[in-house]
Amino acid sequence: MRISELSRRSGVPVPTIKYYLREGLLPEGVRTSATQAQYDESHEARLKLIRALVGTAGLSIAEVHRVLAAIDDPPESLHALLGVAAEATVDHRADRPDHERVHALMRDWGWPVAEKDCPSHDALAAALDALDEADFELADGALELYRDHMEQVAAFELSTVPTDSPTAAVRYVVLGTVLPEPLLLALRRLAQQAASARRFG
Amino acid sequence: MRISELSRRSGVPVPTIKYYLREGLLPEGVRTSATQAQYDESHEARLKLIRALVGTAGLSIAEVHRVLAAIDDPPESLHALLGVAAEATVDHRADRPDHERVHALMRDWGWPVAEKDCPSHDALAAALDALDEADFELADGALELYRDHMEQVAAFELSTVPTDSPTAAVRYVVLGTVLPEPLLLALRRLAQQAASARRFG
Repeated sequence: MRISELSRRSGVPVPTIKYYLREGLLPEGVRTSATQAQYDESHEARLKLIRALVGTAGLSIAEVHRVLAAIDDPPESLHALLGVAAEATVDHRADRPDHERVHALMRDWGWPVAEKDCPSHDALAAALDALDEADFELADGALELYRDHMEQVAAFELSTVPTDSPTAAVRYVVLGTVLPEPLLLALRRLAQQAASARRFG
Repeated sequence: MRISELSRRSGVPVPTIKYYLREGLLPEGVRTSATQAQYDESHEARLKLIRALVGTAGLSIAEVHRVLAAIDDPPESLHALLGVAAEATVDHRADRPDHERVHALMRDWGWPVAEKDCPSHDALAAALDALDEADFELADGALELYRDHMEQVAAFELSTVPTDSPTAAVRYVVLGTVLPEPLLLALRRLAQQAASARRFG
């Protein structure tokens, strides 16, 4: 199909497709003349994946590059593949908070999370620092309660990752990491309102 | 104390204190001359509360106004007071998504959340819409699993709200709503890594 048809079928505007071609995210089509090329279903599928990664998950072009490279040349273990996907969805902070407290927690909890420079450590360290800065003390047992619930959520989520293709696994992990976040937070707030209505209403 | 001493003790710069005075967030001190006024511990305590609401929780000046008004003239029920605090910490969206799906869920689940214009409904409706837009289907049972965990988290959190003073309750609810959000999300991501390492590593 021509680029106009690819645009129509994928819902992605032609200038955006050309941008992805220039950036090397989308493979070139088969040239049929100096100004025309033919595309096939593989381009359409790749384009939809790129849209999900860029649009929904909010990945940068560089991150999409890394994720697509991992799909095209998958690492040996699925864990390493998921690591690429997870890494791409993490905010990289300019100010790196102290991780020592996080490493101690990971050891205490027996969570096998590598103690190298890990952006998820940044996020937890920053969240704990924010509590201190606000002079807000979590209730006794709150951190352990949050941990236990998130551990069960994560265990369920991992059990649902498709393992039949690297593309499906990466798409699922990237979107399945990012999209449920606002869902979980909205459910928590509604649950708080419901609990407040029941208790004090 | 003078405004300079109030600034020193609270860590809030004098121009910021003057701004809060002009905005009516902080009550005027007792005038001792045309250009000077005296402040006391109540100003210091109020200032620290304002800083927590504005700085940490990210509330707008208008929202802080509403929260402080609710503290100064508390509604009859603690539930109504917590509602003011919760309302203040919600993103008010310009594009209001369709709430019908959310209302149906609340009814199905037996969550007593009012079906009026509710910003928390916006958040859940938008989160569900985002899944559809990305053409991402949650695994079977995932929504119910998220719901159950957030329900238990919220029940615990509600049980720890201090009920001895409206100020303490509101500070706790506003900060306790906002600050654990990045904490929960960071714990989920680390738990996913740990689960992935155990399962595929």
